[in-house]
Amino acid sequence: MQGLQLCADLHGCRGPLLTELPALRALLIEAVQGAGLSVVAERFHAFEPAGSGVTGVVLLAESHLAVHTWPEQGAVTLDLYVCNHSADNSAKAEALWQTVHAAFAPQQVDLQRLQRGSVTMRSNI
Amino acid sequence: MQGLQLCADLHGCRGPLLTELPALRALLIEAVQGAGLSVVAERFHAFEPAGSGVTGVVLLAESHLAVHTWPEQGAVTLDLYVCNHSADNSAKAEALWQTVHAAFAPQQVDLQRLQRGSVTMRSNI
Repeated sequence: MQGLQLCADLHGCRGPLLTELPALRALLIEAVQGAGLSVVAERFHAFEPAGSGVTGVVLLAESHLAVHTWPEQGAVTLDLYVCNHSADNSAKAEALWQTVHAAFAPQQVDLQRLQRGSVTMRSNI
Repeated sequence: MQGLQLCADLHGCRGPLLTELPALRALLIEAVQGAGLSVVAERFHAFEPAGSGVTGVVLLAESHLAVHTWPEQGAVTLDLYVCNHSADNSAKAEALWQTVHAAFAPQQVDLQRLQRGSVTMRSNI
């Protein structure tokens, strides 16, 4: 369970990724695969009326990527957690984050990095 | 997008919630509903072979609840993010966390509380 979690709040975003479910889904799944992480399932939901925002998750063998968009605010939140079950996946997480960041092209980002599973990590030392 | 996020690492957990998808799914959905939050979609996945762990997410009108179990470690991670789109949902998030915490009955917990959307929050002041 030990691993890196990125929690990013993106501001000043525009474009179809904030409102169109198929476009957002395609971006995230391709970014996951491009980073060498593994999709095990996914689920997305577009709020009504159309254009209200999209929420979704890609479940990974390495944990999850969750996204929520607020088109009226030009805002997006991203949560990416990758556990290091078989290898250190931090570099893959950072690569995925760079791809998604480039696609949304936010004017401002608030990014928090967490270490998960630290109790187990300490107990293994 | 402004709201509370709870990231919890649970250690010393036992029982069917770590390995049985239907039991884990039922717990989380009932806990969400009991806390007064709204399910818009959900997706769960059980890793092979049976007993290897379960991963899943409940997508909320208020954002998401994600869970991953590691039965071989007796460990669970929970991520709960509730945005305050129409009201302050922090108390509902804390109530949900208490329900889930009681169900897993961990021997040890590492809980991190994040405030999301802080840039927007500051810009609104």
